[in-house]
Amino acid sequence: MATVNTNYQKLQAGYLFPEIGKRVRDFAAAHPTANIIRLGIGDVVLPLPGPIVDALKAGADEMGRKDTFRGYGPEQGHSFLLEAIAGHYHTQGAQVAADEIFVSDGSKCDTANIQEIFAIDNVVAVTDPVYPVYVDTNVMAGRTGSADASGRYAKLVYLPTTAENGFEPALPEKHVDLIYLCSPNNPTGAVMSRASLERWVAYAKKEGAVILFDAAYEAFIREPGLVHSIFEIPGARDVAIEFRSFSKTAGFTGTRCAFTVIPKSVCARDAQGAPVALHGLWNRRHCTKFNGVSYPIQRAAAAVFGAEGSKAVAANIDYYMENARLIREGLAKAGYRVYGGINAPYIWLRVPEGMTSWQFFDRLLAEANVVGTPGSGFGSCGEGYFRLSAFGFRENVEQAIERVRSKLPNSGA
Amino acid sequence: MATVNTNYQKLQAGYLFPEIGKRVRDFAAAHPTANIIRLGIGDVVLPLPGPIVDALKAGADEMGRKDTFRGYGPEQGHSFLLEAIAGHYHTQGAQVAADEIFVSDGSKCDTANIQEIFAIDNVVAVTDPVYPVYVDTNVMAGRTGSADASGRYAKLVYLPTTAENGFEPALPEKHVDLIYLCSPNNPTGAVMSRASLERWVAYAKKEGAVILFDAAYEAFIREPGLVHSIFEIPGARDVAIEFRSFSKTAGFTGTRCAFTVIPKSVCARDAQGAPVALHGLWNRRHCTKFNGVSYPIQRAAAAVFGAEGSKAVAANIDYYMENARLIREGLAKAGYRVYGGINAPYIWLRVPEGMTSWQFFDRLLAEANVVGTPGSGFGSCGEGYFRLSAFGFRENVEQAIERVRSKLPNSGA
Repeated sequence: MATVNTNYQKLQAGYLFPEIGKRVRDFAAAHPTANIIRLGIGDVVLPLPGPIVDALKAGADEMGRKDTFRGYGPEQGHSFLLEAIAGHYHTQGAQVAADEIFVSDGSKCDTANIQEIFAIDNVVAVTDPVYPVYVDTNVMAGRTGSADASGRYAKLVYLPTTAENGFEPALPEKHVDLIYLCSPNNPTGAVMSRASLERWVAYAKKEGAVILFDAAYEAFIREPGLVHSIFEIPGARDVAIEFRSFSKTAGFTGTRCAFTVIPKSVCARDAQGAPVALHGLWNRRHCTKFNGVSYPIQRAAAAVFGAEGSKAVAANIDYYMENARLIREGLAKAGYRVYGGINAPYIWLRVPEGMTSWQFFDRLLAEANVVGTPGSGFGSCGEGYFRLSAFGFRENVEQAIERVRSKLPNSGA
Repeated sequence: MATVNTNYQKLQAGYLFPEIGKRVRDFAAAHPTANIIRLGIGDVVLPLPGPIVDALKAGADEMGRKDTFRGYGPEQGHSFLLEAIAGHYHTQGAQVAADEIFVSDGSKCDTANIQEIFAIDNVVAVTDPVYPVYVDTNVMAGRTGSADASGRYAKLVYLPTTAENGFEPALPEKHVDLIYLCSPNNPTGAVMSRASLERWVAYAKKEGAVILFDAAYEAFIREPGLVHSIFEIPGARDVAIEFRSFSKTAGFTGTRCAFTVIPKSVCARDAQGAPVALHGLWNRRHCTKFNGVSYPIQRAAAAVFGAEGSKAVAANIDYYMENARLIREGLAKAGYRVYGGINAPYIWLRVPEGMTSWQFFDRLLAEANVVGTPGSGFGSCGEGYFRLSAFGFRENVEQAIERVRSKLPNSGA
């Protein structure tokens, strides 16, 4: 009799964002005239810039002509895109070779799939709060055990990341094998300092651990001197894998393109303790389970690095970061304690005293018709926090802040 | 110390197609003037038809305008595409609801990932020869044990599928839980009969097994009355999952779109023996590890079902199937025993007496400069066979046959 992967039965209720979607749909059905402003799921709203649309269409035209048609491409990505990405790393002071890059259809997919190349008994550390995909995919794989009443899994190592420690997770007290780090952070909006990243690289070297570094939001860093890539840190090429995405950077959430960098020098051990290059393992997985990103989409992604494309993309990021400033300052004026929003498109706020994150979610939806993301959805240390996204049209952002100010001022702060 | 998934170390040398690519590159480097004709990897060559390119470009334009821009779509696919697919099933006499369809970026991905929702101790049956992805992904998951000298994995159940049994795999002699079937078959080009599929569905019902039915080549069926979808078989909705792709059907190998159908009625058991709907499990996986297919690509895929798109796609299939006829008849005249090629774009031939599949590969490449696929690459029962693909330009196909006829006639047949 066929049996199911019972690890799936250890997953918490719904994946966070479908649950939010459901509550919003229910509210909208009950209040059909409500003008709901969505700053929850963190989805971009600005259209793709012209140079990127043009590249996509040029790619489509190539697919329609006999002499330029493309069938299966290299699973790792076309060289024009790999070279453009490697060049961009170079401008950021990080050394990445084109053949260390794996183009994919999303960072969610990559950060979800990467755990497959590691043994099941690896000890996994995640920050708390954390992007739920890191946790859920390890649950599905059977690496976590069951969750307790607070939602924490028995075998995961949680690294609290709160206002109390300045949103810099401390090194684990015990040995861990795999460490998921995200900077600029989703959901807290914090950027890890160079000194902190140096400590993490040193820890990984000492412990034989691997750092899975999610840099999906690096393009939103405004302040000079902050770290965009883990590979800016000396020694990181021996212990780290980095994930990046065009989703938020270039408005590709519905267009789909991302990439993962695995230096050829990063290894883990086999059963005999011999080092095995993760690049080769991932390459095998990538070629066996994936067939490359659509050619026209890769053309569009490459245009992000072009002269016109990069200017247009930067303008869109400026737009969102002005939203972030407005949200940050507006909420502070409304009496909220706010974090993030300076080098990241997320604002992380404390909910009013005595409320849970989900209670604030429901109240914000009911009274201000604004959708955000409850901090507790990202882990138990996210309880009492709330995430607002800067991805919205200016007028909606302004209206959302005005509604919070007038209907939900935080007198207790 | 981080450790690797040692199941990867049980995989056979290279994935088949990279190995072919390597041998062809080596030959081309040594013989730079050779005019190599590639009928190996089974990649389409005809450009995307105009109506499909137009839909892709219209989708790109929508992404460039504020009022029509699309961010994250439903992970399962946009409703316009789901409805088009469900409608197409209806015309084929199979009942499939739109919300039983999961759009993805490839059937390789789907057939690779589906095993994740099943327990590790499920007994897996595959035909021999078989599309390597079914095997390799189960090896990676730890479901197969190690391979013996012939390349067969200890815990897999192999179902020989050869000329001796008319390329119809017999039911397994012992119980199995998961059964991969592919019809029209890659690599043999055979189509499973209705009676045979009825036997398989009855077996699955009796044994509580699940059939993973790969119908990626159903659009190439020419003869009336043959089965296009497993869901044409009564009872299949309780025991089967079906995979289909736009890759070969509509020339999407470089454009990337496919889908999987999981009826809500298909179940497997949990540890307590209670039935669990696979639809819900796969939905959870799909939403956690995937973010939907690019919107413009979904627009292009939907155009495949439009009046003009479907006509253009059918014309391309006609073109390839005329190639198939030419290869089939030409090789027969050259003294080869040939199979397939009537309802599938693959011709499966016996290599000359006394040669292995790889020896024939090397000889065909060296003497005729034609690339095919060694049958043994698909399993030990494929030894002595060879696959040629009908995906090529007419003039290349004609020249390839002429070269085989003149340089490698099979006098021993």
